[in-house]
Amino acid sequence: MSSPVVSSATENLAAVLHRPGDIRIESRPVPAIAADEVLVAVSSVGVCGSDVHYFEHGRIGAFVVREPLILGHEVSGVVVDRGEQVRRHEVGDRVALEPGVPCGRCEACRRGAYNVCPHVRFFATPPVDGAFARFVSIHQDYAFALPPEISDEAGALLEPLSVGIWASRKAGVAPGDRVLVTGAGPIGNLAMQVARAAGATEVMLADLNRARLDRGAELGATATIDTREQPLDELAGFDALIECTGHPQVMSSGIRALRAGGTAVLVGMGPDEDASLPVAAIAARELHITATFRYANTWPTAIRMARAKEVDLDGMVDARFPLERTADALRATAEDPSLLKVVVSARP
Amino acid sequence: MSSPVVSSATENLAAVLHRPGDIRIESRPVPAIAADEVLVAVSSVGVCGSDVHYFEHGRIGAFVVREPLILGHEVSGVVVDRGEQVRRHEVGDRVALEPGVPCGRCEACRRGAYNVCPHVRFFATPPVDGAFARFVSIHQDYAFALPPEISDEAGALLEPLSVGIWASRKAGVAPGDRVLVTGAGPIGNLAMQVARAAGATEVMLADLNRARLDRGAELGATATIDTREQPLDELAGFDALIECTGHPQVMSSGIRALRAGGTAVLVGMGPDEDASLPVAAIAARELHITATFRYANTWPTAIRMARAKEVDLDGMVDARFPLERTADALRATAEDPSLLKVVVSARP
Amino acid sequence: MSSPVVSSATENLAAVLHRPGDIRIESRPVPAIAADEVLVAVSSVGVCGSDVHYFEHGRIGAFVVREPLILGHEVSGVVVDRGEQVRRHEVGDRVALEPGVPCGRCEACRRGAYNVCPHVRFFATPPVDGAFARFVSIHQDYAFALPPEISDEAGALLEPLSVGIWASRKAGVAPGDRVLVTGAGPIGNLAMQVARAAGATEVMLADLNRARLDRGAELGATATIDTREQPLDELAGFDALIECTGHPQVMSSGIRALRAGGTAVLVGMGPDEDASLPVAAIAARELHITATFRYANTWPTAIRMARAKEVDLDGMVDARFPLERTADALRATAEDPSLLKVVVSARP
Amino acid sequence: MSSPVVSSATENLAAVLHRPGDIRIESRPVPAIAADEVLVAVSSVGVCGSDVHYFEHGRIGAFVVREPLILGHEVSGVVVDRGEQVRRHEVGDRVALEPGVPCGRCEACRRGAYNVCPHVRFFATPPVDGAFARFVSIHQDYAFALPPEISDEAGALLEPLSVGIWASRKAGVAPGDRVLVTGAGPIGNLAMQVARAAGATEVMLADLNRARLDRGAELGATATIDTREQPLDELAGFDALIECTGHPQVMSSGIRALRAGGTAVLVGMGPDEDASLPVAAIAARELHITATFRYANTWPTAIRMARAKEVDLDGMVDARFPLERTADALRATAEDPSLLKVVVSARP
Repeated sequence: MSSPVVSSATENLAAVLHRPGDIRIESRPVPAIAADEVLVAVSSVGVCGSDVHYFEHGRIGAFVVREPLILGHEVSGVVVDRGEQVRRHEVGDRVALEPGVPCGRCEACRRGAYNVCPHVRFFATPPVDGAFARFVSIHQDYAFALPPEISDEAGALLEPLSVGIWASRKAGVAPGDRVLVTGAGPIGNLAMQVARAAGATEVMLADLNRARLDRGAELGATATIDTREQPLDELAGFDALIECTGHPQVMSSGIRALRAGGTAVLVGMGPDEDASLPVAAIAARELHITATFRYANTWPTAIRMARAKEVDLDGMVDARFPLERTADALRATAEDPSLLKVVVSARP
Repeated sequence: MSSPVVSSATENLAAVLHRPGDIRIESRPVPAIAADEVLVAVSSVGVCGSDVHYFEHGRIGAFVVREPLILGHEVSGVVVDRGEQVRRHEVGDRVALEPGVPCGRCEACRRGAYNVCPHVRFFATPPVDGAFARFVSIHQDYAFALPPEISDEAGALLEPLSVGIWASRKAGVAPGDRVLVTGAGPIGNLAMQVARAAGATEVMLADLNRARLDRGAELGATATIDTREQPLDELAGFDALIECTGHPQVMSSGIRALRAGGTAVLVGMGPDEDASLPVAAIAARELHITATFRYANTWPTAIRMARAKEVDLDGMVDARFPLERTADALRATAEDPSLLKVVVSARP
Repeated sequence: MSSPVVSSATENLAAVLHRPGDIRIESRPVPAIAADEVLVAVSSVGVCGSDVHYFEHGRIGAFVVREPLILGHEVSGVVVDRGEQVRRHEVGDRVALEPGVPCGRCEACRRGAYNVCPHVRFFATPPVDGAFARFVSIHQDYAFALPPEISDEAGALLEPLSVGIWASRKAGVAPGDRVLVTGAGPIGNLAMQVARAAGATEVMLADLNRARLDRGAELGATATIDTREQPLDELAGFDALIECTGHPQVMSSGIRALRAGGTAVLVGMGPDEDASLPVAAIAARELHITATFRYANTWPTAIRMARAKEVDLDGMVDARFPLERTADALRATAEDPSLLKVVVSARP
Repeated sequence: MSSPVVSSATENLAAVLHRPGDIRIESRPVPAIAADEVLVAVSSVGVCGSDVHYFEHGRIGAFVVREPLILGHEVSGVVVDRGEQVRRHEVGDRVALEPGVPCGRCEACRRGAYNVCPHVRFFATPPVDGAFARFVSIHQDYAFALPPEISDEAGALLEPLSVGIWASRKAGVAPGDRVLVTGAGPIGNLAMQVARAAGATEVMLADLNRARLDRGAELGATATIDTREQPLDELAGFDALIECTGHPQVMSSGIRALRAGGTAVLVGMGPDEDASLPVAAIAARELHITATFRYANTWPTAIRMARAKEVDLDGMVDARFPLERTADALRATAEDPSLLKVVVSARP
């Protein structure tokens, strides 16, 4: 059942983070696969802000890079081998990966909240390697077949799209809603696109970067607000806030902009454990505050949305780098906010 | 505060149903308005299947036309006078009417389910007159200002749109969903349009009338199924069913087409008190079955959706009649299913 | 239709707050009643912390006592007269009052959230008078018939019970749940009792007053925690937090004690607009934070619970004062935290 | 890690169904355990109506007993051996078993609806053996530690209690609710007990067997109705129906007894695929109809409820038989409806 691709490919080139700022292209063994796993030749890998953070700081909160680590968790590829129990995929299938494999048995998993499974193995989260590499392996049920309408790059971007879907679900966005999205980076942009797809008739995108606001307007935002020029505090009446900056002050202003009974979803998280929130407004208007941690049950939705062109993923990609230049891809993302999304092409 | 329109208009022409099939154009007094009411010069009135049913049979279930009755409850118009406490509208405002005024105090109203208020006064439901007339009065809070982007006819069709919105809310339609809509008349068509606006990526419309299926496809259905040629029983995997035919067999087949945990919303109702439903499938898949009775809290949503072009209301209107020819409008609706929507123009 | 009680009672004795600390017993006119109102001879009025706050400070946030004001909003009484349209009550009926009458028409009222109606007229909230008086009038639908199993004092305490019911509903308390209630005053005590009635198998009550914790244990708390001796920070795994202290630090510690997916309901509010909340924990565990503002649709539930002895209201009353000593009742509540609930008897 | 119990017990006595009515006591091998499984020496096994149905008819719908089958799926026992990866249990632990082990990976499992997992292996459902035996093996996560407050028999009855909990959750029973439970057998009785524990102030139990109604009244029903004497059709105003008879006529009458917006949960299922339901009432009152298929996420709740004495399980057991007399236990359940619950003791 092993594929010719793998037979010939005895080498697994990978971009390995050794220390902050120090990524080396190394040869790693091709991953072995268990009976229920598939081996995937990586096509495209999106660069996420968390990759950049590990690259620059070597840690995110309690997650510390102690051993050399492969980053990258926004992944599409092609199945090149499969374990003996795999029925879901054939060799040659194009797939997108859900990069966290939960235990499936714990209390959280059983009630469907597998995103908070304490036993999850998540790509590019120490000590689990990610996908800036030629090959990765994954449980068959966390690889999703890509229809031909979805490009390799769009397939990789189903991961940040999932963040946007999850946020929109938590916000309960429905037709006719007014939604405020704070933060116009890739996550905010996708949250905006999903809110639009869910029928929100007004989706205002707020940021302090004009280029990103313009990209948001191109991709569907009905209004933008440049927070360097206009404070959020004058806004009011939103059904939902999807907060993607992680800045306490933006959280607070955004929450104040909600109508009675409105919902705030905190997606972005800054470095601080605590933030000052407007509890008097929360009480007087009986607001709902919740947050997202990764996502659950989003890939099938994401695939249907991308195939139906309800969202535009390809239009978000502003720069591409080969696997050998992964460090440059990370640096470009870090340094140039006008690049909405940078993708690493892992094909030889 | 009285308007020149009313001053000059001492006459209120109305189409009055006396007996089944017998509609007479008569002069009625211009309605008096209470302190919290507005007087509205009617612009457009959509013809609904229930109007046709009263016209043909003189009753719908327990509601029997015992006294001469004015039909019509899909209404747009212009405010021409207002009571002294009215602050919400100015004379001259274009408005769409929510045609049922609930008590606002009973147990149902208090919990937000005002559509099942036992004290509601609903247009064109015996003994309450409707809007096939030059003038109607209504409580100020049940008239909604129309923005210029919404035509008079579209303003009238916010009422059937509300039925579609309510059905979609009850079905919980969300991005990526697969929805089956049975019945391709105006209600089914609008339920389909709303499901699309809510992000459903697949909305299949089923009917036995080819012309109506074609109209559905024009207005957004991603697939149609002609039930004279292909039985519903082969379908499977839908997240939601919005049932608009009222035929027990269609209800049953549609319910069987749901995935585990799916939801069926019964919108159409036939003459029978009971229907045979597939309880074994309901149990084995833990399906949810519910229904709609009118709607609640939909006009603001409907206006935002229509203004944003999330739905196409003007494109549904296939025939127009002046008020004097209301009977012809009812007959045309009854006899020609290729007419998706017929509208009565009530302007002199 | 006027009753003999009123005919004889030409005087309406009332306890009127003129300035902070200055309550005078004065004769006010017996309230006139509208066609849909009842006149109620007040039986019992519970003393609430908000009454004490107005008494001591003359204001609560933006609500400032500018004109002499009658306090008291936890009310039971007897119908002594009724307007001509009243059908719900007979003269002589014992009733409990829901002390806020919303407009019934606004957007909030229509969707069932009448507690946030901006037009509500709420007892003892400037400039609306309350019930420390012989007589009050109210819309018939906001007076609820009391069954004989519920005493006059318990009837008055249906109001704080409503706060507890509303909090428990928002927390979604269900059988088998673990609930943390912070604050063991009357509201915390009732929230605890309701959580127990809703099947929570563990309800821990936290306070820094030992007497109140002991009262809580008597009335159903399965565990108590004296926060002077043991910090809340060691707690974990609760399904819900019902926060009744308004102290930011307690809010924060309580929120940290929730399991993944748990819900915090903020009931108590301190003087501050903002509070520092643990957003990192909210995000990592996808917690839900919401709050209560008064209540909606609780009196029928409260009456059924009190009648079925699911809660013990009479057992909470520790002191009683006649109407003439209303100021003493307020002072006793302010000064002696061992008094769980103080009630004013308004009968002559 | 193997226990002395197993070392000595080389024999696994089991009650094996060969043909309808033909149960034979046979020696089967002690089950082998996988690395993540425990071996359980069975203590008590409750007799369920489904066991009786297989015993009498050799099938339930599409599930047909083709090979000899061990029945029994309400199970408590003691851990006597464990696989090498087991961390959750020690040898000697008393446990109750959740008798269905789902795949943990499929779409249903991922969204928390593991009860409808198409790959579930469920005890006593052909071709999977059940627990009328000395020993069974199960995945460690489907065995739940029993606290000392819960007897072996009560531990077995956590399974039917789970059915009641699941029904009550689906019905959304809350404090103050009025609930109608149709069917007073063990499931109806437990649904009633759970509804009471959830704060329902009125739980009416309906059946045509007087003895079972009396048992219901003893165990908490606030009212009973003998349907041979009084038709259900006179009832009205219930918030929820929990239907445990499976009789279409009872379903229909029960649904008609709901208030507007009420919920019916179909727990019992008869032999028929379809049933005539009152769709006009469902529509006019916007009722919700759903059903239960087994349960999900109920054992932790069940254990907490049983330990807290929110339900009385021991009081339901009316007869006990040793494993060798399993056939008699099944016959007694079939023939004597006055026996609320019959339990098989599997200890040697």
